[in-house]
Order: sequence, then C-alpha cells, then structure tokens
Amino acid sequence: MAVIYERVALIGLGLIAGSMAHAMRRAGCVGEIIGTARSAETRAIAAEINLCDQIADTAAEAVKDADLVVLCVPVGAMASVMDEIGPLLKQGATLTDVGSVKQAVIDLVSPYVPEGVHFIPGHPLAGTEHSGPRSGFATLFDNRWNILVPLEGADQTKVDQLADFWTALGAKVTTMTPDHHDLVLAVTSHTPHLIAYTMVGVADDLARVTESEVVNFSAAGFRDFTRIAASDPTMWRDVFLTNKDATLEILGRFTEELFALQRAIRQGDGEHLHDYFTRTRAIRRGIIDAGQDTAEPNFGRAPGTKE
Amino acid sequence: MAVIYERVALIGLGLIAGSMAHAMRRAGCVGEIIGTARSAETRAIAAEINLCDQIADTAAEAVKDADLVVLCVPVGAMASVMDEIGPLLKQGATLTDVGSVKQAVIDLVSPYVPEGVHFIPGHPLAGTEHSGPRSGFATLFDNRWNILVPLEGADQTKVDQLADFWTALGAKVTTMTPDHHDLVLAVTSHTPHLIAYTMVGVADDLARVTESEVVNFSAAGFRDFTRIAASDPTMWRDVFLTNKDATLEILGRFTEELFALQRAIRQGDGEHLHDYFTRTRAIRRGIIDAGQDTAEPNFGRAPGTKE
Ligand SMILES: NC(=O)c1ccc[n+]([C@@H]2O[C@H](COP(=O)([O-])OP(=O)(O)OC[C@H]3O[C@@H](n4cnc5c(N)ncnc54)[C@H](OP(=O)(O)O)[C@@H]3O)[C@@H](O)[C@H]2O)c1
Ligand SMILES: NC(=O)c1ccc[n+]([C@@H]2O[C@H](COP(=O)([O-])OP(=O)(O)OC[C@H]3O[C@@H](n4cnc5c(N)ncnc54)[C@H](OP(=O)(O)O)[C@@H]3O)[C@@H](O)[C@H]2O)c1
Repeated sequence: MAVIYERVALIGLGLIAGSMAHAMRRAGCVGEIIGTARSAETRAIAAEINLCDQIADTAAEAVKDADLVVLCVPVGAMASVMDEIGPLLKQGATLTDVGSVKQAVIDLVSPYVPEGVHFIPGHPLAGTEHSGPRSGFATLFDNRWNILVPLEGADQTKVDQLADFWTALGAKVTTMTPDHHDLVLAVTSHTPHLIAYTMVGVADDLARVTESEVVNFSAAGFRDFTRIAASDPTMWRDVFLTNKDATLEILGRFTEELFALQRAIRQGDGEHLHDYFTRTRAIRRGIIDAGQDTAEPNFGRAPGTKE
Repeated sequence: MAVIYERVALIGLGLIAGSMAHAMRRAGCVGEIIGTARSAETRAIAAEINLCDQIADTAAEAVKDADLVVLCVPVGAMASVMDEIGPLLKQGATLTDVGSVKQAVIDLVSPYVPEGVHFIPGHPLAGTEHSGPRSGFATLFDNRWNILVPLEGADQTKVDQLADFWTALGAKVTTMTPDHHDLVLAVTSHTPHLIAYTMVGVADDLARVTESEVVNFSAAGFRDFTRIAASDPTMWRDVFLTNKDATLEILGRFTEELFALQRAIRQGDGEHLHDYFTRTRAIRRGIIDAGQDTAEPNFGRAPGTKE
C-alpha cells in the first residue's frame, strides 16, 4: 500500500494508540511510527514489545517533523499535552485526536494549534474494557466507524488524507458536527456506560447478596454490565465531565422511561411491559444486519475459559 | 453414563428445553425424551429436527409414565399447564421447572401437585437472547449454575437425583431459599434486563438521532444492551410481574445511586466519578476468575460477521 503519512507521532500509548500502531504496520500505510507516553514504565513496555519504530521520552521530541500527530490520551490531558507540543508542530502537519467527546476537545485543543497546522478532530468507535500499552491489536478498527469532525474552513485534501489513513487501518469513515457527535455518543456509549457502572455499584453495595453470589450467578445478564463497567476510570471520568449536557439530557429521558416501566411493574401492567419489550428487538436486528455485532449466542464465551 | 431418569417429559420446547434435550443426549443420562409444546408449529419443527425421541400433541399425553417432568414454559403459563397435567403425574415422579423466578412458581404450581409427586423447583442460570425450538444447544449449561429450591420436607434422595441429572448436563448445582433466589436474580439478571430494555427504548425514541445512527455507532457500549434487550418479551413480562418486590427494591437502589452520579456530573465532581468507576472493576476480575466470562476483548465479535 502507498504511504499516506511519512512520519506519524502517537501521543499516549494505550489501547487506541497501540491498536493504531498494529493496524498501521498491518496496512503498511506509514513510513515511521514514533510513540511517547507519560510514564517511563509505559515507554519501556512499548519499547520492549516493539510497538513503534521509535519511542521518544517526551511528546515535544515525538512530534518533531511528524506529518501526522495523534492525541491518544484522556480528554482531560489534552490541553496540557498541547501546551507542550503546540509550538513544535511542523508547518503543514495534520493534528488529530481519538477522544470520545468532540466539542470539549475542540475547545481544549484549538487555542494551542498554530497557523499552518491542520487540526481535524476524530473519534474511532471501537474499544474494549482493557487499557495500557499491551492491550492493542491490529483488528480493533476493522469494520468500525471513525467519525471525523472537521472544523469550519478545514482543508478538504487534508480531511480526505486522514480519511484514507483510517480506511487503511480498517475503519469506515464518516463526518459529523461536534454537537451531533456528542449527542449520538451520549446515547450509544456514554449513558450506557454510566448505567452499567451504576448497576455494578448497586450489586457491590447490597449487603444481603454476597460478592461471591454476584460473581457466580452473573451469567444471566449482569456479566455484560461488569465488562462495560471495567473500563478505564480516568477516561470515563473525563468523558462525563466533558460531555455533561448531552449525557444529562439522555439520563433525564432514561429515568423518565424507567419510572414508567417501574410503575407498570408496580401496577401489574403486563401489556405495557410486553409492548415495550417487543419494540426494542428491531434495533438489535439492525445492528446484526449492519455487521456491528454477531447473532451467535453467548459470543463464544467458552465455559471456564480464563485469560 | 448411567441412566438417571428413564423417561423425561419436557413441557415447552424453547431455548431451555431444547438445550436440555441436546445436553441429555450428549450425556446419555436418560432413557427416553418426550417433548410437547403449545403450538403445532413448534411441535412440527421439533419433530423435523429430531429434538426429542417422541413429540406428544398434548402435555397430558407427554407426562404419562414420565419419571421426570420439566416445566419449560414462561412462568405465567405454568398454572394452566399444571391444571392440565397435575392429575396425570405418575406416583413417585419428580416435577421440576426452569422458571426465572422461584417464589411465584412455587405459589402457582404447588396447589396442583398431587401427593406422592416430588416437586423440586429449579432455575438454570444460562440463557441467550434467542428463543424457540431451533435455538437450543448442548453446551448451554456447561459450567453454569443451576439453583435448586427444595421445599420444606423435600425427599433428599429425589433432590440428589435431580442434582445428579443437572450435573450430567454440565451444570454446577447449588440450593437456595426462594426469597433469596429472587433477590439474587433481581440484582444479577432482572434489573439489568429492565435497564437494558429502557436504554434501548430511549435510543429508539430520540428523534434527533436516527435509527441508522444508533445502529451504526453502537459498537462503543450500546450493542451489549441491545443483545440483552432482544430477549423474549413474554418471558420477561412474566419475570417482572412475578418478581415484583425484589425488582422494585433493586430498582429503587439503582435510581438512588444513579441520581448521585448524575449530581456528580452536574457539579463536575471528578473525584466522586473516578472513585465510583474504580471500585466496580474488582467484581469483573472475580467473574473472570470464576470462569463465568472470558477476558478476551470483544468476545470474538468478528468484524462483519453475520448470521
Ligand atoms: N478505550 C476505549 O474504548 C476508547 C474508544 C475510543 C476512544 N477512546 C479515547 O482514546 C483516548 C485514549 O484511550 P485509551 O483507551 O487508549 O487509554 P489508555 O489505554 O488508558 O491509555 C492512555 C494513554 O494516555 C497516557 N496519559 C494518561 N494520562 C495522561 C496525562 N495526564 N498526560 C499525558 N499522558 C497521559 C497514558 O500514559 P501512561 O501509560 O504513561 O499513564 C497512556 O499511554 C481517550 O481520549 C479515550 O477517550 C477510548
Ligand atoms: N431464555 C433464558 O435466558 C432463560 C434462562 C433461564 C430460565 N429461563 C426460563 O425458561 C422458561 C422457558 O424459557 P425459554 O427461553 O426456553 O422460552 P422459549 O424459547 O420462548 O420457549 C417457550 C416455550 O413455552 C411454550 N409456551 C409459551 N407460552 C405458553 C403457554 N401459555 N402455554 C403453554 N406453553 C407455552 C412455547 O410454545 P410455542 O413454541 O408453541 O409457543 C415454547 O415451546 C421460562 O420460564 C424462563 O423464565 C429462560
């Protein structure tokens, strides 16, 4: 495959950056990958597993001469990273990010972007509950969407180049406004995560049901919540702090509907419950047809399999 | 393997009964399997795929001479089934069920159980979102718990025999009181299902986010909710109608904690959020260590895989 960017700098070396590194190598679509992370420990692991072609000690060093710089740190860390690297970005370079919210990233990052650098925010809709430099894998983005959020007046050739890059990594690319992105993600990701965290917290608190009971008898629904609720706390704190309005709006609707179902249970209104439970099946079918999940029962959770 | 029951009657031929039939044959632990279902269509499919050794047209016919009778219908259908079969049950036979709630099943079924028949309620904690006679598979119960809920004065040799039967089908067996069962399941299964149904309903209602957006951008958390919310509406209506008190109690706690997190988001209290999200990770580790799920990222959801 043709080289799309000669030199790519990954700032942060966790799940997303690591998966990008693996996918870039699989595609052969970049000349050289430079990575850096905050801690010496992460940098040492990345060097040991040969995650990138070079590991730089600082972000400032990593971005030197880079044609594409990708911010792969929690949203709350982006401003301070930009404060360090902003003045060092190469003229003509593209700067992007993978943050899970977009309006806040634009507000935090834009002030530090020099003239002549093309800032094109983005968000790959792919993840797992794992994190850190060893958690990445080349197929993470395959057939998943990456939402680019070009700012007004963005250079279309640079946007197309970034779209080609993500396509080479296996993703499907679309564009959205930042507000719409934040609302769509509040529905499809942020509120579901908050709810899963809450449900697991309730189970953890309940004195009359022991933790070992919760663990042993989790197969009938709860375990899916625990997987979601095992995601990185820092990342998710930042998501909720920076996508406050959309999350609170969706949460408001969620509690309204939950109260209506709660009332139906209390009043023994089986028809209301049955109707509600019927209507939600169609969305599932759509997701399977769109290739965003499989219909296989239990998703190959082999009984007794451990890490 | 030695034969544990000579003649087993399955009343209802859906996911659970079908999986039992496959698992009984794999184990070779019964002499003969007779199945029956409400509709001629289900009975015809079961006959066509050779799910049982015999398909009976009525439940009355199926239970004749059966040593073990298993009620595999929704909880709300159990009383009328018992009304039909109660007087025909063989002296000394064991009667059990697989219903997802236990106190209500005991209340509904017990009045119809004749003297000399051993009623031992049970609940295998294993399932998928699929239903019907074609959805069963032999490994469904492997390494999963089956909770038996013997009544006061139950014949221990009959309880042990039923435990041996489920062990032969791959399950681990434990016992509980009906109240405790219903509370544990309200936490680990019933409330999570209600919440998942609600979240999917909210997404479905939101006019500003299209259904195709919800479907396409579901990979970041939402799709797990849609899987749970694709479960059979009749079964779940019956679960909530018959495990009302425990579900409402857990729902009350859930909304309390959700409000606290909502306030933390509104007030920008990152520490509260981070602490909460940290504490829920331990349970996940426990579930993986107990073999009730795997740590594999994405659970083998092969990108683009369809049915
Ligand atoms: N995980 C997902 O499911 C997912 C999906 C889509 C998008 N995202 C977004 O991707 C970004 C990275 O997430 P991830 O899952 O890859 O996270 P991760 O595995 O936890 O890695 C985060 C990386 O950022 C570094 N970092 C953390 N705090 C920092 C700080 N204050 N200053 C500088 N560097 C810091 C970490 O360095 P050390 O290792 O040295 O601590 C680490 O290398 C986030 O913005 C997240 O919103 C995540
Ligand atoms: N699915 C799970 O995850 C799961 C897990 C553990 C326990 N359970 C329990 O297992 C039981 C069966 O669930 P399932 O998942 O196997 O359901 P399923 O696949 O929907 O099958 C239900 C069976 O019950 C029959 N049935 C339904 N309504 C009936 C009625 N009013 N009278 C007589 N027969 C009726 C159906 O007959 P037709 O096909 O002719 O309509 C069908 O054969 C339920 O009590 C449920 O609570 C389910």
